[in-house]
Order: sequence, then structure tokens, then C-alpha cells
Amino acid sequence: MSDERKIQEVLARYVRATDRRDGKAQGALFTDEAVVQIHVKTGRDSYEPFGEPLIGGAGVEFAVEHLMAPHPEGGSSHHTTADHIIDIEGDSARMSAQFVVFSVQAAARPADGWPDGVFGAQGTVRPIESGYYETGLRRVDGEWKIVKHDIFMDMPIAVTGA
Amino acid sequence: MSDERKIQEVLARYVRATDRRDGKAQGALFTDEAVVQIHVKTGRDSYEPFGEPLIGGAGVEFAVEHLMAPHPEGGSSHHTTADHIIDIEGDSARMSAQFVVFSVQAAARPADGWPDGVFGAQGTVRPIESGYYETGLRRVDGEWKIVKHDIFMDMPIAVTGA
Amino acid sequence: MSDERKIQEVLARYVRATDRRDGKAQGALFTDEAVVQIHVKTGRDSYEPFGEPLIGGAGVEFAVEHLMAPHPEGGSSHHTTADHIIDIEGDSARMSAQFVVFSVQAAARPADGWPDGVFGAQGTVRPIESGYYETGLRRVDGEWKIVKHDIFMDMPIAVTGA
Repeated sequence: MSDERKIQEVLARYVRATDRRDGKAQGALFTDEAVVQIHVKTGRDSYEPFGEPLIGGAGVEFAVEHLMAPHPEGGSSHHTTADHIIDIEGDSARMSAQFVVFSVQAAARPADGWPDGVFGAQGTVRPIESGYYETGLRRVDGEWKIVKHDIFMDMPIAVTGA
Repeated sequence: MSDERKIQEVLARYVRATDRRDGKAQGALFTDEAVVQIHVKTGRDSYEPFGEPLIGGAGVEFAVEHLMAPHPEGGSSHHTTADHIIDIEGDSARMSAQFVVFSVQAAARPADGWPDGVFGAQGTVRPIESGYYETGLRRVDGEWKIVKHDIFMDMPIAVTGA
Repeated sequence: MSDERKIQEVLARYVRATDRRDGKAQGALFTDEAVVQIHVKTGRDSYEPFGEPLIGGAGVEFAVEHLMAPHPEGGSSHHTTADHIIDIEGDSARMSAQFVVFSVQAAARPADGWPDGVFGAQGTVRPIESGYYETGLRRVDGEWKIVKHDIFMDMPIAVTGA
């Protein structure tokens, strides 16, 4: 497998872990010193950092387990990535990707079954977030690990009262 | 072309065939003994099978031609896939992918032209389904074919009266 | 890096340039004689050309700088591509891709902060366009450049009064 594909699959595992709220699987993709920072867009080409960076796989694991809202009953999500640009130099790499997050809410089947004339998948799929991931990786013992992960959000993030 | 890319292009042809309701093109991607099963999500990590499996390229072709609703006038769809993870062992392979389905409905151009001030693409693009494809493939005479295709839907599927 | 990946990254740069309305970056991806044509869907398998073709990198640069609507305050977009099929023959290549365009509008933070109970990303992400890119490329001095770019839109495009 090419290194570019290996690197892209790190992100493919990242989004699955996020969507399953699996902090252990997600943390394992990062080095101990990795720095993860969210940025929010403030203008055409300008962003500002949002909150403090997470540090290392342990920090990522904690955040996923304790700070991300669990899915409600019937809820799922898909962090999808597209249009990757990957540059490798020796044991270092940079990856840029677009992301769109979809929030899924399944409809509950009525106790007496679906009504007449209703058919197909029942529920809603809504895009709720988007932006760019800019990710630095390093090859450690033959495996690509994330050392820096910058999440550039298109939209501001509300914190109550702030 | 790498085997990983060849395998990913099988899925790229699968989604185009689905969206064009081209049963012949879609069936040709499967072996005669292939097993295709839909599953619907019932809890955080649980799914249950939906309906009976389709068997082989002929079964897939029949289903696409006879069981999928045709697009209405002005309608299109896009089954899009993202974040593939591909593992190859000799002549066998497994691929995992996220999918999001978009339903497109073009607006009809008014008989006397578009009103003043209206501009850009006219119609709606709506995400309607999502989940994961988990696909097994085998190299047959140098070509990758699908031998198993599990569709894990995030949402339940309504069948009238059921 | 494989030629397939290099070719796919041309499209990855194209969508970023479009979304940033960066005509210079976008024009640089095309040869001087490149032909870019939009087509709109008129039936199941039929399309008709929309407007005149753009010619060359200079034509693309002009169109991006002068004909694309700028994003409003708080606005962003993401042209995302998926399910690429790439065929290379010597120094020529063809790429087919699905595209979905998302329009993003950030909410403005209220002067006295976000209200109680509001949290997460604030704004809307809406899919607004979709279709297929069918792109021809040629290797020029070792770099892949677009020589033909056909944009097949699922929906009609309104031009006031037309």
C-alpha cells in the first residue's frame, strides 16, 4: 500500500472513531505529544483558535469520551472527508482534507407498523458542520501517527454565555 | 494502477450504476454467488438484517431493474462514498466505506422563463440515507469482483403495513 | 506519488480554488487551450450545453474573478468530489467524479453572547448543486494539466428573463 493511502486511512479511522465516540481508537492515532487545535472562521481567510489545544492521544481520548455529546436514541453521525492533498517528505507528511459532518436521526417505527404509503429509509440526514482538516503526521516504527491536527471550522461554536 | 484503487473504482462504478438504475452494469460487478444483504441499525453497535439477501450479479440486476423506484421527472440521485479502508490479502480484499445518498429534484423552468432575480441552479439536493458499505471482493481472471456486500443503514426502512 | 493520485489532486486543488474564489490558482490548473463547458440535465441520459465554453486558464481565471458571486459575510462553500474513475494512457488521462456543492452560512454571534442552552457550531450547511465532472488531462513538462472539463449539472441554471 502506498504511503499516501496509509496516511489517508489514518483519517478514515479517525472519522469512524469520532462517529462511534470511541476515544481509545481515536487516541491511538495520535502521538503522545500531538497538538490538536480547533479554529473558527472569522473572515474570508482568517480564523481564530477556539479553546485550548488537546495534547496527545490521551487528551484526544479524554475529549472524545467526556466532552463530545453522545448520540441520542436513534442518532448517528458521519464525519466525511474529501479531496485530500498529501505531501510526504521522508518520515513526515502533511494532509489537507475537506470535511462535512452529517447528523442522522432515525425515525422510530410506530407500534402498529409504518403507515400505508410510507416507504424507504425513515429519518433525517442533515449536514451540520464543515471545514478543513490540516494534519501533520510522522512515521513512528513504520506506522503513520498524527502529530498535529488543525480543525478549521466554517462556523463559530457557541459556548453558553460566552 | 494499484489494487487498492482498482477496488475503490469497483465501488465508484457501483454507485454510478445504482444512480442510473442500470441493473446490467451493476450486476456485472458481482460474482454469480455474491451475497448482498441490507442491515438496519437498531442500537449503538447493533444492526438487524432487513429482508432476504440478493444472490449474485443476476439477483442484483433484477433488484435494480424491478425493485428500485425510478427517478421522477427531473429527479437524480448520487450515492457518494468516502473514507475507504481497504485490506488486500492475495486475491481477496475487504473494503469499508461510508456512504451518503443525495436525492436531487430539478425545478421545472417556467413556460415564460425564470422570474427576475432568480439565478443559479434551480432545484433541491437532499441527503436522504447514510451508513456504511462493508464489501468483500475476490480477484477473478485478473478483475476484482464483489463476493459479499453488506449495507449498514443508519435508519429503519419502512415497508407498508410491516 | 502515483499518476492517478496526482490527477486526483488536480481536482482537489480545483475545488479549493473555486471555494476561495481564487481565479489565479484555478486558472493555473488548465492549459491555454483548455475547453470548459457546463451542461444541464434535460432527461434521464440527456444534457444540453449551458452558455459558451470558457477557453484556457485565462478564461477560467476571468470567470472565477468576475462571474462567480462572492460569498456573503459569514459565507463559505465546499465543492466536494467523490468516487473518481481515472484512466491514463501515456500522457493523456480521463477522470470522472461525482460532485456535491455545499453552501455554508455562519450565524453571527449576538453582541451579548450566545443564549443559554445554545451550543455547538452555529449556522447552516446546505447542499445546493450536484452532478458529474468529466475531465481530460494531459501531462505537460511532467505536470498534469486540465485540457477539457465538462460539468454535468443535475439541475437547470436560471438566467434572469431567459
